[in-house]
Amino acid sequence: MALALALGRRGAGRVWPNPNVGCVIVKAGRILARARTADGGRPHAEAQALALAGEAARGATAYVTLEPCAHHGRTPPCADALIAAGIARVVVAAGDSDPRVAGRGLERLRAAGIAVETGLMEAQARADLAGFLSRVERGRPRVMLKLATSLDGRIATASGESRWITGPAARARVHAMRARHDAVMIGGGTARADDPMLTVRGMGAVPQPVRIVVSRRLDLPPEGALAASAGTIPLWLCHDAALPEAACAPWRARGARLIPCAVEGGQIDMSSALSALAEAGLTRVFCEGGGGLAASLLGADLVDDLALFQAGLAIGAEGTPALDAMGLSLLAEAPRFALDRCEAVGPDVLSLWRRD
Amino acid sequence: MALALALGRRGAGRVWPNPNVGCVIVKAGRILARARTADGGRPHAEAQALALAGEAARGATAYVTLEPCAHHGRTPPCADALIAAGIARVVVAAGDSDPRVAGRGLERLRAAGIAVETGLMEAQARADLAGFLSRVERGRPRVMLKLATSLDGRIATASGESRWITGPAARARVHAMRARHDAVMIGGGTARADDPMLTVRGMGAVPQPVRIVVSRRLDLPPEGALAASAGTIPLWLCHDAALPEAACAPWRARGARLIPCAVEGGQIDMSSALSALAEAGLTRVFCEGGGGLAASLLGADLVDDLALFQAGLAIGAEGTPALDAMGLSLLAEAPRFALDRCEAVGPDVLSLWRRD
Repeated sequence: MALALALGRRGAGRVWPNPNVGCVIVKAGRILARARTADGGRPHAEAQALALAGEAARGATAYVTLEPCAHHGRTPPCADALIAAGIARVVVAAGDSDPRVAGRGLERLRAAGIAVETGLMEAQARADLAGFLSRVERGRPRVMLKLATSLDGRIATASGESRWITGPAARARVHAMRARHDAVMIGGGTARADDPMLTVRGMGAVPQPVRIVVSRRLDLPPEGALAASAGTIPLWLCHDAALPEAACAPWRARGARLIPCAVEGGQIDMSSALSALAEAGLTRVFCEGGGGLAASLLGADLVDDLALFQAGLAIGAEGTPALDAMGLSLLAEAPRFALDRCEAVGPDVLSLWRRD
Repeated sequence: MALALALGRRGAGRVWPNPNVGCVIVKAGRILARARTADGGRPHAEAQALALAGEAARGATAYVTLEPCAHHGRTPPCADALIAAGIARVVVAAGDSDPRVAGRGLERLRAAGIAVETGLMEAQARADLAGFLSRVERGRPRVMLKLATSLDGRIATASGESRWITGPAARARVHAMRARHDAVMIGGGTARADDPMLTVRGMGAVPQPVRIVVSRRLDLPPEGALAASAGTIPLWLCHDAALPEAACAPWRARGARLIPCAVEGGQIDMSSALSALAEAGLTRVFCEGGGGLAASLLGADLVDDLALFQAGLAIGAEGTPALDAMGLSLLAEAPRFALDRCEAVGPDVLSLWRRD
């Protein structure tokens, strides 16, 4: 199962809207086949592993990190495939809370006389599959917020200089984090100030995450890098649903996908924006700021994981804060995160936190 | 020598204005005596170790972390004491840059026919003795700045609530840090807002560091905890030298020591304030903020070590920043620190940085 989970983890950021499942088929102490859900989400891990094992699968045990699907989607149900291949025993780490599956996959296996065990390394499986489970259980993707600040929590000087606060090692780590997410998200202010590409670079040929800009009015640089690449690398724009079509059309023409969202208090309501993104299939979103979007997400308790890169320099109070106003007055109201771990990354510190 | 250094380190914060020296006397592979400079700075490590070794010291080797003194201060020179005791060989880690010693201690030993070796574990010795060496070489104490912030670099909410951002483990660590410094320093704003005791607590009976408040106008709470304890635990006040005597007299009457300082740009000039503190004998100062004092020290490049405690909560931009304005506009102007290490302290992160 540990091997199946490791295989599944490799699919993070590559298989949405499907879960990043891993599957290992074993007979008489020998591994017959190993597979993970393919990039793009199809074929599923089980189907690939069964194909690799072939006739030898008869009488074998399949270790699967998530309950095999029982419904006809774009692929036939994996439960049926396991039955047809003559698998004798299926060991499952986590149940699938997708209402189309939710126990039916296990039922179908048991009805066919297959020995079924569940719950092996379940906690690890739920952590690995947290993005998919968040989408089906909470109707929103799992969200990691990245902040890259000075010692005093600033992301730019008063003059707007922000390149670079953290060093090359931290930036390389950010690219690796992007690659493990379905989408990278920034606010309109950051898009205007930095016009970043938001692509994964320095990691060879990897699938590019969707790039999302949250911009109420779509007042983004029409000649910028994001605009120019909208036709080649997915660019999704979360905007005010009431925005006139004239403001939307040019972006649609450039190749961007438009996501109309509710507005609350003059800002995109991030809760409804994330619902829309989940409906569009996203399971893991990596938010890189700026301060306005980060504060909106934190204020609405929509941040699950927080990655803080911190460089050893002091900028002072005129610098741009990592978080805009959050409207808190008491410490008890502040969203709290539990420390996962901290480590040196080149000359910088990375601390990883999880919502308490 | 490693043992002598470990002994010497125990004296940090306890022996000012003298260096925290360690001494081990060895003969025929056996340790005859070990000592460190006593609390308060006297007797010196060598004198104590020689007294412990007695007649057996004749022909022995003395390991000393700092060049033995050669001048008559309040104690007779240690070089003479080593000679009189019949020590055959002296191994020294670091030279003493005090102009009253500066090589004369070694000369005197050599002239008496003692074998002298220098430079063993010198880098560690210079690090351990950095406070004393800073005082004699730079005319100011070594300064460690402590910041205890939220994830976004805030030290209080908009309403001023700051107790507690970090947890009990971090606060205990702060008390241990205080105990290893000669003095704890805060700004007047923090004294007014928090009226802290600034004492070392929870560590048993330990010498209390001097408490320093930097307050241009001495507009501090006259009924507060600091004022009430000024007669029993040293309280030094760095104030505008031009302040009328009427503002100073009440504090002197309470038992505080007044340190008149130059003012520049409406603020105490911290460079001259630290010179005055060095002249008063301090070698290691631990600054605990607030944002104004921290920014002054950083802006004038007077911070040698920085300890950042960070708690897993987000306060947002209305919160009080850890550093006030520093007048920087370019990243290249920002003071940079090199990471020493980072670790979890209870639920918080501690990162330790050294001026690059």
